[in-house]
Amino acid sequence: MSLLVVGSVAYDGIETPFGSIDRILGGSATYISITSSYFTESINLVGVVGKDFRDEEIEFLKSRNIDLTGLQIDKSGDTFFWKGKYHFDLNNRDTLDTQLNVFEHFDPIIPEDYKNARYVALGNIEPGLQSKVLEQIDNPDFVVMDTMNFWIEGALESLKKTLKRVNMLVINDSEARELADEPNLMKAAEIVLGMGPEALIIKKGEHGALLFTQDGIFSAPAYPVVDIFDPTGAGDSFLGGLLGWLAYTDDRSAENMRRAVIFGSVMASFCVEKFGPDRFKTLTEKEVFERYRAFISLSQIPELG
Amino acid sequence: MSLLVVGSVAYDGIETPFGSIDRILGGSATYISITSSYFTESINLVGVVGKDFRDEEIEFLKSRNIDLTGLQIDKSGDTFFWKGKYHFDLNNRDTLDTQLNVFEHFDPIIPEDYKNARYVALGNIEPGLQSKVLEQIDNPDFVVMDTMNFWIEGALESLKKTLKRVNMLVINDSEARELADEPNLMKAAEIVLGMGPEALIIKKGEHGALLFTQDGIFSAPAYPVVDIFDPTGAGDSFLGGLLGWLAYTDDRSAENMRRAVIFGSVMASFCVEKFGPDRFKTLTEKEVFERYRAFISLSQIPELG
Repeated sequence: MSLLVVGSVAYDGIETPFGSIDRILGGSATYISITSSYFTESINLVGVVGKDFRDEEIEFLKSRNIDLTGLQIDKSGDTFFWKGKYHFDLNNRDTLDTQLNVFEHFDPIIPEDYKNARYVALGNIEPGLQSKVLEQIDNPDFVVMDTMNFWIEGALESLKKTLKRVNMLVINDSEARELADEPNLMKAAEIVLGMGPEALIIKKGEHGALLFTQDGIFSAPAYPVVDIFDPTGAGDSFLGGLLGWLAYTDDRSAENMRRAVIFGSVMASFCVEKFGPDRFKTLTEKEVFERYRAFISLSQIPELG
Repeated sequence: MSLLVVGSVAYDGIETPFGSIDRILGGSATYISITSSYFTESINLVGVVGKDFRDEEIEFLKSRNIDLTGLQIDKSGDTFFWKGKYHFDLNNRDTLDTQLNVFEHFDPIIPEDYKNARYVALGNIEPGLQSKVLEQIDNPDFVVMDTMNFWIEGALESLKKTLKRVNMLVINDSEARELADEPNLMKAAEIVLGMGPEALIIKKGEHGALLFTQDGIFSAPAYPVVDIFDPTGAGDSFLGGLLGWLAYTDDRSAENMRRAVIFGSVMASFCVEKFGPDRFKTLTEKEVFERYRAFISLSQIPELG
């Protein structure tokens, strides 16, 4: 089924304990589109880049069968730039530089051909813009949104309005606690589900992810990556793998939602193996499905004899 | 199979955000014995208590079919006392008081009848004493030990000697990182396995546990307890559930080791529901096996269609 992805397209500067890179393709819409492209073919990206955006990025995205009709090229300035430095344990990072550039006035205009999208990914952008995207789309089957502490703290009412219109929210554990104003994660999940979405995923980084729905809780492990190289984009890769699988199968049963969470975890586990989205330049479909099976081996609990 | 448990028997004073209790039965040997008693019948406890140890504690332990021939009663002083206060998130605690009392000179003398124990749990005591226990036992089949940062920092050489003599080490994630002097948990696990034990379990609290063996890694989820009341004893309950199941089945296959890890997680998940070991005054075997099945439901990854 067709998948619409709206979010940032960016350049990132990244410092990790293992090296640094001045400028590499980044942004939520970028990672979501690339990772979902392993599962579904009709991916429409809506975002904005500036005059500095290189042809090689366009070529890479097109090579993943991503339709770029909705990618605005704003010649009045440069592409959104973010620079961050990861701590030794890779679980924390400091933002060193943020240049919004053309992204500051991003107005997500959905091309006519995209308005019948059945699956929609709302990357982490201002919640009012996320709502504006939904207003332009004809009754989609499944909408997933991401957000962050910045919007929870600065645009809570707008965020709550958007939450009522989406099917699934994907956030990390500290964001869930903050959004619910509740330290206990299980209680926080219940409170967030009460805000509207029928499904909630709480990402816990190296500890895996939890899916909360009316069917109960699913606890997904994290893949034990020995050499985590760069965590940038892991959360968006999770969302892309998840939604790509759902759009491909068009099956939102409880069982298939679990598969989607695992494919999200699979894509996140590959993402961290190289700088930025570099791992996806060589990753094959075969490796993706092999890692799915590795997740089963990793966590399968035997029945009692 | 017979199970020997050596460790502390204590009184604990506990403060949590939900209430406090001045004095309740505690200690590693206590929790390990009580929780393993749900699986195996021949449990022999070796520890020491003081003149203040109440008959009701003895009665409770005996009601769980725990043999107390090896429990020394030292009338020269009081029982080991620990007092701690948990933070709001329950993941951290401060020690408010430690009175070693008769535990300071604890000399683990193994009664003749216990020396043929097939399964041995070495609770968190000074590593030299753990070795001394092993010197008194006839070639056991499986020895599990716990330890803590205090011994990693203060008795590392002695700890490493003990490690060479045990089959499994059970520690938490920060202890594993400290023992291996390596922040990456996967690499830390490899280093610790290189120190001697054929199996390592890293407990991650609310994030579950990881089992490392030559067969690979098993990632066990944590049970989503909505109302965690008091974490005291959860780690020892994990060890007791795990070793109790192994001793009962006498099966150390890769598959059954996974079951043991889950039964450990089951017992830890019940432990935190009430103050100290109180939950085990009412917990039934039926509830234990029901929760094992709940762990399967919680984490089962469906095969691809």
